[in-house]
Amino acid sequence: MARYQAIIAYDGTDLHGFQLQSGVRTVQGELEAALQHLAGNPVRVAGAGRTDAGVHAAGQVIAFDLDWRHSLDDLRNALNANLPRDVAVRALNPARDGFHPRFDAKARSYAYHLAFSPARDPLSDRYAWVVWPAPDIALMQQAALHLAGTHDFASFGTAPDPGGHTVREVLRAGVAPGEAGAVFTIEANAFLFRMVRRIVGTLVRVGTGRLTVAAFAALIDQPDSRANTPAAPPQGLRFLAVRY
Amino acid sequence: MARYQAIIAYDGTDLHGFQLQSGVRTVQGELEAALQHLAGNPVRVAGAGRTDAGVHAAGQVIAFDLDWRHSLDDLRNALNANLPRDVAVRALNPARDGFHPRFDAKARSYAYHLAFSPARDPLSDRYAWVVWPAPDIALMQQAALHLAGTHDFASFGTAPDPGGHTVREVLRAGVAPGEAGAVFTIEANAFLFRMVRRIVGTLVRVGTGRLTVAAFAALIDQPDSRANTPAAPPQGLRFLAVRY
Repeated sequence: MARYQAIIAYDGTDLHGFQLQSGVRTVQGELEAALQHLAGNPVRVAGAGRTDAGVHAAGQVIAFDLDWRHSLDDLRNALNANLPRDVAVRALNPARDGFHPRFDAKARSYAYHLAFSPARDPLSDRYAWVVWPAPDIALMQQAALHLAGTHDFASFGTAPDPGGHTVREVLRAGVAPGEAGAVFTIEANAFLFRMVRRIVGTLVRVGTGRLTVAAFAALIDQPDSRANTPAAPPQGLRFLAVRY
Repeated sequence: MARYQAIIAYDGTDLHGFQLQSGVRTVQGELEAALQHLAGNPVRVAGAGRTDAGVHAAGQVIAFDLDWRHSLDDLRNALNANLPRDVAVRALNPARDGFHPRFDAKARSYAYHLAFSPARDPLSDRYAWVVWPAPDIALMQQAALHLAGTHDFASFGTAPDPGGHTVREVLRAGVAPGEAGAVFTIEANAFLFRMVRRIVGTLVRVGTGRLTVAAFAALIDQPDSRANTPAAPPQGLRFLAVRY
């Protein structure tokens, strides 16, 4: 029996999030089913982050124990052959005993994709939030400058564990203009429940003139768990990577 | 009754191509159903190009006649409300009487997206052909230099009309490297059936060392309708735009 670490990508459109739930397709459920098929017995999968229903991942990290006598490439290919089309193993490596993708993580990063258009766009709708009128990117960038650092983010999310505190350290955050859209990226030691989507929903309010940059900064400087900041929809969000 | 021109985008994954066919979902069928719902009578839609099943479009052009008493924005929004999620009207304008999106077109452009990866990637698979080992982009670029100009492209496709000739003028063609992939773009006065996909399938053979650049050039200089060049899969192809 050896421990493995894998980088996982998924299209979250038709998945009910990462975490195992009975009766619905989840990322953990699909991975455990594929591993059980190869191992002949149940295999428990641990993940670095519990993404919501509809959220995508390019670099989710998982770990599991398995008795495997062939090469790493063979294991990756066998898993991909047994996984549904919307979940795949991108890379696979041996891990030390006891490695835990969530508790050992030093930082996680996410991207949120915005598309600016007055009409629906079937080629963007799956992986971006279509916003119109186009927000002012410079205003969003000014507001995003207030995110970096160690702050109480209670205005933007709740602790994943009951009674957990809401202080997180944002290592970097920013808005990059794109072709008819923009991408918000953020790296933090850890995230609150819905934190990225609520930050983006609020940044778009700033960009469309419904909230000032000063009011955005106040949500960080004067944390308020009842702020009820609006969450951007899940399909624009993408779990990018984990640092250890 | 007035004539309209619309720019249409679609995700071709679950569509059986552009052209109307009974019993299956097609782009033309979905557009005519939405227009009939608004008009109360059948409305015929003409398109600039007949894309294959699974091929996407960012800028397909259509035309139709309609009696509409409200604004252009209202018509675009009403159509988008009546179209399925994978088809949308991106822009709508009045057209002169008799405008035909196919016969009046001066040039069409397509993009083909390649992703280079040893494993499946659910976030690329829908809109790109995943190729491994990664082809040599410089070799593909050298080969693509032979495409521009007026040539008989019989090695890469058949005429859409029975007995039609296979000479086409390629206005520009090239391969641009991207992040873990590449994009092939091509503009021509018109295209043969499967022409872009067979050019890309053959360029990838050049890039992976299975065909020389000279052999690629010979397929153009000595056209051969029995060349049986391999077609790249449909999901990487995107109909970009039409010039009038």
